[in-house]
Amino acid sequence: MKINNRHYRTIWPDPADPRVIRIIDQRRLPHALVEEPLRTVEEFVRAIGEMRVRGAGLIGATAAFGMYSAALAAPTDNPLPFLQEAGAALCATRPTAGNLAWAVKRQLNLLRRQTNPEHLRQIAFTTACAVADEDADFCRRIGEHGKALIAEISRRKGGAAVNILTHCNAGWLAFVDYGSATAPIYAAHRAGIPVHVWVDETRPWLQGARLTCWELAGEGVPHTLIADNSGGHLMQHGLVDLVLVGTDRTTRCGDVANKIGTYLKALAAFDNKIPFYVALPSSTFDWEICEGLKQIVIEERDGDEIRYVTGLNDQGREKRVLICPPATPTANHGFDVTPARLISGLISERGIMRAEEGDILRLYPEQQLS
Amino acid sequence: MKINNRHYRTIWPDPADPRVIRIIDQRRLPHALVEEPLRTVEEFVRAIGEMRVRGAGLIGATAAFGMYSAALAAPTDNPLPFLQEAGAALCATRPTAGNLAWAVKRQLNLLRRQTNPEHLRQIAFTTACAVADEDADFCRRIGEHGKALIAEISRRKGGAAVNILTHCNAGWLAFVDYGSATAPIYAAHRAGIPVHVWVDETRPWLQGARLTCWELAGEGVPHTLIADNSGGHLMQHGLVDLVLVGTDRTTRCGDVANKIGTYLKALAAFDNKIPFYVALPSSTFDWEICEGLKQIVIEERDGDEIRYVTGLNDQGREKRVLICPPATPTANHGFDVTPARLISGLISERGIMRAEEGDILRLYPEQQLS
Repeated sequence: MKINNRHYRTIWPDPADPRVIRIIDQRRLPHALVEEPLRTVEEFVRAIGEMRVRGAGLIGATAAFGMYSAALAAPTDNPLPFLQEAGAALCATRPTAGNLAWAVKRQLNLLRRQTNPEHLRQIAFTTACAVADEDADFCRRIGEHGKALIAEISRRKGGAAVNILTHCNAGWLAFVDYGSATAPIYAAHRAGIPVHVWVDETRPWLQGARLTCWELAGEGVPHTLIADNSGGHLMQHGLVDLVLVGTDRTTRCGDVANKIGTYLKALAAFDNKIPFYVALPSSTFDWEICEGLKQIVIEERDGDEIRYVTGLNDQGREKRVLICPPATPTANHGFDVTPARLISGLISERGIMRAEEGDILRLYPEQQLS
Repeated sequence: MKINNRHYRTIWPDPADPRVIRIIDQRRLPHALVEEPLRTVEEFVRAIGEMRVRGAGLIGATAAFGMYSAALAAPTDNPLPFLQEAGAALCATRPTAGNLAWAVKRQLNLLRRQTNPEHLRQIAFTTACAVADEDADFCRRIGEHGKALIAEISRRKGGAAVNILTHCNAGWLAFVDYGSATAPIYAAHRAGIPVHVWVDETRPWLQGARLTCWELAGEGVPHTLIADNSGGHLMQHGLVDLVLVGTDRTTRCGDVANKIGTYLKALAAFDNKIPFYVALPSSTFDWEICEGLKQIVIEERDGDEIRYVTGLNDQGREKRVLICPPATPTANHGFDVTPARLISGLISERGIMRAEEGDILRLYPEQQLS
């Protein structure tokens, strides 16, 4: 998508030296646009762990490029143990993220068969680029499928703006391009369907306030920032037509792990009979599990993310402020699981399906258990 | 309750000059304890409107003392229009607060009958003191009734700590003393029943992070600060035994207007079969309405409360930081309505009742419609 009229992806090989991978440091947005080069596995691990890059698809693409970086550094004789160690380090950064393990596994499955060091590096690079390109392509297709859903609501409202609530940032910044939850919004907006987005600020990391608002403003999509507490009230008063969120891991039965707080919005949508859709490229499916609540590990992060809020002070500098007594104990769970029973449908690159194993397998028959 | 071992209420006549009413400026907590004198109706209006004082009971007591301040300033011949104007100005500050209109009406009903200026001032003072004393006494009694509920859960858990989730600050800072939702917690804690409180930070104003954590720490009650998004996840995993919140206005049929986001926690408690109780002195009842969603006006506040977060910077100064692109549109609804069907019970000074008109009137038979 565009930043100041220049087309960006969230991750790309440096044209001057493709062994260097460039990212946008998302901790600095929306106040500063800072690119950062990644050169070593350690730098990739830190970029994911510290959330310089975040979001389902982008974590996957970063891990794929991280494995390329590992391939460059691996000993030419017997590279596999080095690659496996790098993969384990990458996977340990964000335990809930489905795309992370998926991307590492995809690289390892190909690289373990290579004996020629040059081939190894070449395949690692093309695989990483393929992961990124597929992610962008899948998100673009999610946009087309979801656009039809928004168009239908718009028709029912006689052309009035469709009010869409979203949580966290499942925007292009969370993927390689387009985003998952935002892709249908961008597609509808470009097609001239009037939309308005309620953006949950998404504490503690404020992905909604910092990233989603910035993205939507960049594309000219009307939006309103709200506290995470507000969505239920808006739904009770008919001010939300559709809830559209992303997911970090989705089970084969349709349970969805997404940013903490998603479950609360799903409950409110269900209580008010408002459609609640989850957008995801299929790389986010974890085909090996069914029961999200029991089987998805939920990441716990540093308590300072709760105790402090970072933003721009009145002198224009990025600073943190303490919002509670300094010694306050905290708990900081990164995700929650929304059970399939609360989800109206899933939107993937192959189309729209109900959040249940049978209908998911209708679109992904290759995942049938034999 | 105690601050640094000195007993405080949240509002009190200055012992040196009882025409001056003293409050704690709650905007400065927990980082600074700043008392403030209120002398004129304008100062009372500003104190409520700017949330120097806030919370159901304290708003009521402040309005009652504000009417005393009006009585001091009223013309001795025909004081009523002046008093009515003051009452209207006080009521306009926080439209959702039930205790506000109740306290102003209670004063006006008594003062409109006075012809002797000295009696007028005397009655305004004793009425304001009575409103404050009753609020403290009612909250103390709420504590006793609620303690029995916590003791029962503790028994069922074999004496293990009872995990209580609360939203916003319905603590002693929100009342004159003890608090509503916190009163049972303090009573249980003092009785040696082990409790642990999950404190919702409560964006945008952060009453939970700033006030509830500070209160609980002052009384030595174990607690953990969480993002507003976290409660559903904790409930799904059996980490919450009881949800206990306050209310700013309660209908005769048991619908509850409380801080925005309460409805989302009620949905999660219902979905996970966790008891959800609302504590309130009966001054919070609005006996004239039944349907909360249709009949309670929801206050909308300034968007800067969403765009900025205020706290202590690393140099120990209270500063605000901007958390979104500067021109971001916002919506800032102060309250939402939790329908009675999601509420396990109400705890008032008279006992515990189901959230339905018949059972509420069992404890308040004087409110039967004739």
